[in-house]
Amino acid sequence: MLKKLIKILFGEPLSNEQAAGEKYNIPFGLAVMASDSISSVAYAGQEILFVLIGVLGLASYYWLGWISLMIIGLLFILTISYIQIIKAYPQGGGAYIVAKENLGTKLGLVAAASLLIDYILTVSVSASSGVAAITSAFPNLQPHAVKLVIISIIILTILNLRGVSESSKIFSIPTYLFILGMILLITYGVIKYFLYGAPTAKVNSFATNATGTLSIFLILRAFSSGCSALTGLEAVSNAVPSFKEPSQKNAKIVMILLSGLILFIFGGTSLLARFYHPVLPSNATILSQITFSVFGNSFMYYFIQITTAIISLMACNTAFTGFPMLMSVIAKDGFAPRQFTIKGKRLSLSIGIVVLSFISGILVFIFNADVHNLIPLYSVGVFLSFTLAQTGMIIHWKNSNESGWRKCVVINSIGMIVTFITTIIIIHEKFLEGAWIVIILIPILVFTMSSVWNHYNKVAEQLKVLKSDLENTSLGKKFTHIVIVPIASLNKASLSALQYARSITDDVIALSVSANKDELEKLKIKWNELNTDILLISKYSTYRQVITPLLQYLDTIADAASDTEKITVLMPQFVTHTWWGNLLHNHTGFFIRENLLRKSNIIISTYPYHLNDDK
Amino acid sequence: MLKKLIKILFGEPLSNEQAAGEKYNIPFGLAVMASDSISSVAYAGQEILFVLIGVLGLASYYWLGWISLMIIGLLFILTISYIQIIKAYPQGGGAYIVAKENLGTKLGLVAAASLLIDYILTVSVSASSGVAAITSAFPNLQPHAVKLVIISIIILTILNLRGVSESSKIFSIPTYLFILGMILLITYGVIKYFLYGAPTAKVNSFATNATGTLSIFLILRAFSSGCSALTGLEAVSNAVPSFKEPSQKNAKIVMILLSGLILFIFGGTSLLARFYHPVLPSNATILSQITFSVFGNSFMYYFIQITTAIISLMACNTAFTGFPMLMSVIAKDGFAPRQFTIKGKRLSLSIGIVVLSFISGILVFIFNADVHNLIPLYSVGVFLSFTLAQTGMIIHWKNSNESGWRKCVVINSIGMIVTFITTIIIIHEKFLEGAWIVIILIPILVFTMSSVWNHYNKVAEQLKVLKSDLENTSLGKKFTHIVIVPIASLNKASLSALQYARSITDDVIALSVSANKDELEKLKIKWNELNTDILLISKYSTYRQVITPLLQYLDTIADAASDTEKITVLMPQFVTHTWWGNLLHNHTGFFIRENLLRKSNIIISTYPYHLNDDK
Repeated sequence: MLKKLIKILFGEPLSNEQAAGEKYNIPFGLAVMASDSISSVAYAGQEILFVLIGVLGLASYYWLGWISLMIIGLLFILTISYIQIIKAYPQGGGAYIVAKENLGTKLGLVAAASLLIDYILTVSVSASSGVAAITSAFPNLQPHAVKLVIISIIILTILNLRGVSESSKIFSIPTYLFILGMILLITYGVIKYFLYGAPTAKVNSFATNATGTLSIFLILRAFSSGCSALTGLEAVSNAVPSFKEPSQKNAKIVMILLSGLILFIFGGTSLLARFYHPVLPSNATILSQITFSVFGNSFMYYFIQITTAIISLMACNTAFTGFPMLMSVIAKDGFAPRQFTIKGKRLSLSIGIVVLSFISGILVFIFNADVHNLIPLYSVGVFLSFTLAQTGMIIHWKNSNESGWRKCVVINSIGMIVTFITTIIIIHEKFLEGAWIVIILIPILVFTMSSVWNHYNKVAEQLKVLKSDLENTSLGKKFTHIVIVPIASLNKASLSALQYARSITDDVIALSVSANKDELEKLKIKWNELNTDILLISKYSTYRQVITPLLQYLDTIADAASDTEKITVLMPQFVTHTWWGNLLHNHTGFFIRENLLRKSNIIISTYPYHLNDDK
Repeated sequence: MLKKLIKILFGEPLSNEQAAGEKYNIPFGLAVMASDSISSVAYAGQEILFVLIGVLGLASYYWLGWISLMIIGLLFILTISYIQIIKAYPQGGGAYIVAKENLGTKLGLVAAASLLIDYILTVSVSASSGVAAITSAFPNLQPHAVKLVIISIIILTILNLRGVSESSKIFSIPTYLFILGMILLITYGVIKYFLYGAPTAKVNSFATNATGTLSIFLILRAFSSGCSALTGLEAVSNAVPSFKEPSQKNAKIVMILLSGLILFIFGGTSLLARFYHPVLPSNATILSQITFSVFGNSFMYYFIQITTAIISLMACNTAFTGFPMLMSVIAKDGFAPRQFTIKGKRLSLSIGIVVLSFISGILVFIFNADVHNLIPLYSVGVFLSFTLAQTGMIIHWKNSNESGWRKCVVINSIGMIVTFITTIIIIHEKFLEGAWIVIILIPILVFTMSSVWNHYNKVAEQLKVLKSDLENTSLGKKFTHIVIVPIASLNKASLSALQYARSITDDVIALSVSANKDELEKLKIKWNELNTDILLISKYSTYRQVITPLLQYLDTIADAASDTEKITVLMPQFVTHTWWGNLLHNHTGFFIRENLLRKSNIIISTYPYHLNDDK
């Protein structure tokens, strides 16, 4: 039953041969990579306006345009810089790899930590933003926003555990529908404005009460809020090997198409905001307000709200692809637990996916699924990793002998300087609002990753055998054996286990600990009926506990054993063939196993006894 | 580090001798048992008013009094009925035991299911109600209500995992402070009303717009909402053996004291509501509004809000005591997984506690921590179990030979009739609002519990050995052994494991599967340096996966083995002595173990290799 459910939810297991088919062509790749960046128009413009409107009032709509232009300029620089990375790292050069190879391990880990935090926030922010599009259109869903976001994350987790290609096919349709919607919105919105002029002015007490003046700090603050529009841009360069051949060329084309899309959609909606004056703060997103101004309460309004919601949820997918892949790279380098490299039955990096959705879900819960509260944590990591990648690229070109390396150095230097300044601006402007959390987390993560690496190294050192050791090792019969079989009663399972034990050694001890005197007596009587010289040691536990006295006894025997004696504890274990059967059995055995492993040199053996569930 | 944290959170482990000290005397027992019942005044009156006020308007305050009197009448009948149960079941007679013994297993399980649901809702409702008292006093905490409730449940879980006696001592102080506060509130509120008269009438648009008329259905609806005041009454009779000796007498005294308290507090606050006309719906609870009317913005107002909050949270404790205890009883009877009987290091039934807090936390999340939405699910289970307990008692007295059994039959018959009618009223009035969920859940739970019982029984049947079997079993040496040691490389751990394997049998096979050709080559070279006749089988896995080909190979060998050959897979396992060390190792081993266990008759042995973490 559970197996059927798992199959329905996660699909049939994929054989390894199917792995190669899981790669992106240009349209699918663009759909997967684009969602993160283009969905951010749903909140980036809003965040800029949030900063401006309380200070500048109605002049904000004018300045919104200029700040959007600054961000588009930054987009231009980043696009060129990232095409350089695709060129230099055909095997996939995320900020982690570029920084590690060119700037050393420590800075590589800083980039890795930034990216991991960034991926987690991508999920939290995008999912929250997607649900905000829905609650804008259907305000009575507002009280359920957190629940809707969490459910969305769970659904995405399941889709991603099914495997990436199938996911991207599902994801590409809404991406293109959203792009279509945006083209219609911007085109029709601009035409409508020039035909019919501005709509009647709205009441915006927040804006009309504004009394502040324009300052460079205000502009920088608004700029740092808007930088969230550029998150997700690095996805393409990370994922070069995931593209179909010629993967480098395809990735480059996708990168350029993506930037074009951001330019058009982000620029276009900023223009519409200037024309249609959305109100802030409001229960509805500004994109929802603009769309309503342009299309009214029509099909197109709901079409855009729903595609915005879906594309925002799909934006999470960038992280659901990127996070596990990055974790797997880090784990292969020994900086994270090795299980992050284990692929699931559907060839997805299951553990990374689950970890990602768990942490981002908690963030959504803590921050009440409020995009505005999450944003200050978001951009720091992104721009820090941008900066490190650009810096790494400068070193890369300097050390390379390729022709034209000087031009490349210039390009990446410009990128480095711009992203570095942006990082400083973001940290400065957003520190108290949440950026401090990221500033603290990054060194903690770097330290943790270094510790993991040290641990694996120390272990390898301890386990190492030298050539001389090998030659001197004899693998003859060195040990005699004592096998102890813990039994609760004499049944078919314990009898089989005793037979197995007896054929290993003559020194078999049956050990029974019980808090029930009657049961112990019954066991002794039955034992006498059994024709055996195996020793039965039965202990009555006065204090209900069974496991502790059993462990104590085993400890005593282990301490008394000589160097040539090996103690094996053989535990009969019921094996059921229903998923719930295992919930009903073997918990005592599990506790004994865990405790023995941790404390002693006793070998623990499990003797399976298969139960017939179907009878 | 983790161990230290666990100690701080959960306290030092309690030895079994300390178990006896964990019992209640009268004041502590009252404090633990009372919280559930008396904290319900914080919402029961409110729920009655909620039903009335939209229909009857200002006349509601008058009818509130009469409905409260009906509920107090019900309280009187239930108290007498439950004292009967304490008399008849000194070993603790919850509805489950009374129904099972007198009405048969099926109805016993119905009672058990009702009680389990009831306990879960006690936690959800009480914790939400407690937080509502706080958000009434501090309205800017309102958006964080769900989070506060979840945090409260987590804190209570930790306290309860520490053990019950310590908990009850912590819990008794706020209970008595709350009782003190209520006495002051009711006394001063009544005196103030008679000295100064009613306060100036408040605007209550909801009440003044009401145009409905009084009907019997309205009264029944209000009555069914108010019945939540009587939840938790059964706690005393469940917990007779937890009282100090003479436990029966102590329990009876606590039962009477408890009813007196409910009478005074519930009756008193209903009276105050009639005098001071709290407004509904409102962001503040009606208890908060009444208290504010009586004491104004004074110390006493905050005192009562805070003690209300604390006692409501402590009310959860009734469930944290009752749920795991009931689960343990059910599990001992074979109707629930046996691990519910396992006591933790602090003598608490840890698994039951964790299950309870998990499910109730999810309910809080789904229902937005809104008491009004949770109430319809609450009372059904309570009154269904009341009815079953009373019915069971009638049969009990009929079958007993005690003098005066006729009088007892009459008392419990009245109890049965009244609670049965109340159950019908609640189901009828609250069906669509949520009672249907409980009506569906109860048969599902009963079916599940029966299935668990069937499973344990079938297993016992399969394992049973007859006397003749025992006499014919020979425990001599019957088997020859093949031991397979999966190794990834030649290191100290794998060498030790091979030595152990070799001393069991000559048929040892070292098996290595790798996706890395270089590693395999290195292993082969090293193996040749080793002077051994042990067979090394190395397999190159073309598709990155390691576990699947390994399992396939083991399957092949297992299929080829004869009846007298036993296959043992010996896995070297690294043991680390830091809590995080285990996160970094042995995951492949774990997967192999799980898969082998499920499929084959292969014995799985773990060879521990202790790593020196502290170096």
